Amino acid sequence: MQDTKSGKDPIPFVPIGTIYTPFTDITGMPVQPAGARGTRGSVEIFPEYAEGLMDIEGFSHLFLIYAFHPSPSYKLTVIPFLDTTPRGVFATRAPRRPNPIGLSTVRLIEVSGTTLVVEDGDILDGTPLLDLKPYVPAFDSYPNASSGWLEGSAGRAGSCRSDERFR
Amino acid sequence: MQDTKSGKDPIPFVPIGTIYTPFTDITGMPVQPAGARGTRGSVEIFPEYAEGLMDIEGFSHLFLIYAFHPSPSYKLTVIPFLDTTPRGVFATRAPRRPNPIGLSTVRLIEVSGTTLVVEDGDILDGTPLLDLKPYVPAFDSYPNASSGWLEGSAGRAGSCRSDERFR
Repeated sequence: MQDTKSGKDPIPFVPIGTIYTPFTDITGMPVQPAGARGTRGSVEIFPEYAEGLMDIEGFSHLFLIYAFHPSPSYKLTVIPFLDTTPRGVFATRAPRRPNPIGLSTVRLIEVSGTTLVVEDGDILDGTPLLDLKPYVPAFDSYPNASSGWLEGSAGRAGSCRSDERFR
Repeated sequence: MQDTKSGKDPIPFVPIGTIYTPFTDITGMPVQPAGARGTRGSVEIFPEYAEGLMDIEGFSHLFLIYAFHPSPSYKLTVIPFLDTTPRGVFATRAPRRPNPIGLSTVRLIEVSGTTLVVEDGDILDGTPLLDLKPYVPAFDSYPNASSGWLEGSAGRAGSCRSDERFR
């Protein structure tokens, strides 16, 4: 790791596919998968990566890791959609972050060639996909984790919609 | 999104900090947080991002998104540590992926300035951190998700260690 330890050199990532959803405008979107329940979208993997999809159909949920819509800049303190108080950006899931990387868990409905039909994606249409990983409850499910400032409001995510604040 | 839709242009990300763990060799590492339970490490955020850590101390678990150790290449089919059968890389959590992005959930023990003391990190010492996000059970916990080819073996992750295969 000598070459990267404590390094600050940019690391380039290349899109491996595109995420398509009904959400074509950053305003009025669901703010979490809870707000996108049942909303169908698709993930189109570029053909050169098709082989990597083998066995994916056995998983009911997938992590999508993607690049947020181009943001002009980021702020280290934001007022999240589910709050009225400024919070540190790393304590939020807000899109305008130092590295605009998005993480969503979606339900996998069907695999057809390089197309994954998914549900619950709180993601803007046309978003570049960087990676997908299987969601494995033994590794990833922590139902009793504490939710910090979201303790009282996370349940409201299902009815919350985005506004102009991160445009 | 016109400028990136279906685009394949590289997207550069810049490390925002460094992850320190006792795991200095890619061989013999835990293969999932289950194998690193109780192992203490730290995340050092670069000082220019300190303000973004506000409110993080309220969360018991964090997602760390990081760049895997430099890999010479990737394979679209891999034999994962927990299996003897080749699997599509996107159906695994193997490190040598088209975009070598790692995702781990760690327990947050303490915050001291720009140092986060964490446990359960199955991560190589000196790994560049790209983003951290709060783990929120209402958004992220799916205890009943199905685990595909890992259905019978995910529970063994706690006692499994890495070998040379992704070196």
